[in-house]
Amino acid sequence: MQIAIVGAGECSPEEYEAAETAGYLIAGNHETLVCGGLGGVMEAACRGAKEAGGTTVGILPGTGGENPYLDVVIRSNLGHARNALVVGSADAVIAIGGKFGTLSEIALALKMKKAVFGVGTWKIEGVFPCATPEEAVLMAVRASRLSR
Amino acid sequence: MQIAIVGAGECSPEEYEAAETAGYLIAGNHETLVCGGLGGVMEAACRGAKEAGGTTVGILPGTGGENPYLDVVIRSNLGHARNALVVGSADAVIAIGGKFGTLSEIALALKMKKAVFGVGTWKIEGVFPCATPEEAVLMAVRASRLSR
Amino acid sequence: MQIAIVGAGECSPEEYEAAETAGYLIAGNHETLVCGGLGGVMEAACRGAKEAGGTTVGILPGTGGENPYLDVVIRSNLGHARNALVVGSADAVIAIGGKFGTLSEIALALKMKKAVFGVGTWKIEGVFPCATPEEAVLMAVRASRLSR
Amino acid sequence: MQIAIVGAGECSPEEYEAAETAGYLIAGNHETLVCGGLGGVMEAACRGAKEAGGTTVGILPGTGGENPYLDVVIRSNLGHARNALVVGSADAVIAIGGKFGTLSEIALALKMKKAVFGVGTWKIEGVFPCATPEEAVLMAVRASRLSR
Repeated sequence: MQIAIVGAGECSPEEYEAAETAGYLIAGNHETLVCGGLGGVMEAACRGAKEAGGTTVGILPGTGGENPYLDVVIRSNLGHARNALVVGSADAVIAIGGKFGTLSEIALALKMKKAVFGVGTWKIEGVFPCATPEEAVLMAVRASRLSR
Repeated sequence: MQIAIVGAGECSPEEYEAAETAGYLIAGNHETLVCGGLGGVMEAACRGAKEAGGTTVGILPGTGGENPYLDVVIRSNLGHARNALVVGSADAVIAIGGKFGTLSEIALALKMKKAVFGVGTWKIEGVFPCATPEEAVLMAVRASRLSR
Repeated sequence: MQIAIVGAGECSPEEYEAAETAGYLIAGNHETLVCGGLGGVMEAACRGAKEAGGTTVGILPGTGGENPYLDVVIRSNLGHARNALVVGSADAVIAIGGKFGTLSEIALALKMKKAVFGVGTWKIEGVFPCATPEEAVLMAVRASRLSR
Repeated sequence: MQIAIVGAGECSPEEYEAAETAGYLIAGNHETLVCGGLGGVMEAACRGAKEAGGTTVGILPGTGGENPYLDVVIRSNLGHARNALVVGSADAVIAIGGKFGTLSEIALALKMKKAVFGVGTWKIEGVFPCATPEEAVLMAVRASRLSR
């Protein structure tokens, strides 16, 4: 199973911590973390996943700029179109904070009928709001296992 | 100048009429209409633009299913990733109605710092809400001319 | 019908002239010219098509750098992946000169079972070699009309 | 380091064996295998890599059809445009057999200035021909380590 964490390349310390916790727990549940491969929420999630010995995948919009916690780097060079690949490759999606890029990933995920869980992110009908990263991962893991 | 109209492939009669009017006025302003090339709001916009003798461009998600009012057909075969091309090719964007696909186009457009005007669509900070398609086209034409 | 001309962004005077002639004849046959939107062979083809009053479409790899003879500009921002869109949007393909980018477009076109006509380009089984741009356009127009 | 093996989804027993050997050796060299994720040469390479305990990544053209030897699955849904991602994500490329799809990957890799090694594949200037998969992997590993 693959779970995506989406969020901004620049984020608050609280968002960074939430993403790190989420990444840690995804790895602890033996699921692979997929993200956009850059900094901020993406880096934090990868860092957390690596602390728990997990596998991390980053789908970059360009060909560089990856964070140092990636096992697999997809150098898509697709620009913002790569957002569709991040969520399209996931069995469930967790959104943490974020602005317009994150909103596009939430919308693309919902369009693809993926389960989306939010932590302090856009309030969009269809996104299940979670109070903590722990809750978001618990639900995303369940959803990902039901999705196949 | 190229103006994109985004909206759902299935729409209400009111949305169809609004999109047809918007397409007509874009062509009347001698601007090229860009859209996703399918039915519903996309078809209505193209139909309106052709009634006014304009040029219409459809960027399909697959290789077929285009509406009959297209001058240029881009058979992208990129799936939902094509949404980034529709708004990326526009100097201004008008969103009419729509669900998650439209929301992704709005978000991608805002991420790319394009001006976005909405008619009965998602209320997202950064989208300028318009009461009528006439108002939306008036503002989108102005924005597109300021953008270059 | 849409015919693509593919070739390098830098080309010899002979290739430029061949592409300009091919673009002129495509427009004279009332078909739309699709290309990668940049300089060299792409620019020459568009220039020829505009001299004959035709319609030109450029699918850029980035968001800028377009030649001045384009009616419709698709700012794909997909990098080299845009090559698949150029040939995927064509009912027949003409290759003039070119290096590895052109070879990728020839290969992608053949993979998509498009008819490909070559003028002084890669000798690949499946590409029909033509002695002149006139011959290439004559055959591409026929092939494009048979393809639908 | 990531090495791509490209080749057809249907292949001869000799090609299958060569790809399996190449995949095995890539994993033995502690490099990650990237491929198009489908059957034939892609499956064989992944199978070999997993026999050696390596990591395998498949970038699918659609959203399904992956072979059973993949650790990471990128569901690109980009059609043939995904070929650019397979080679774009690699530090070196090995082509085994193959037809037009493989030719497009060779050409895209050369366009991106990646080192390309061929085993019984297209004879294209710029591709280094290798007699065996062992030789191809030896050279690709060296090239990938020099590339960063």
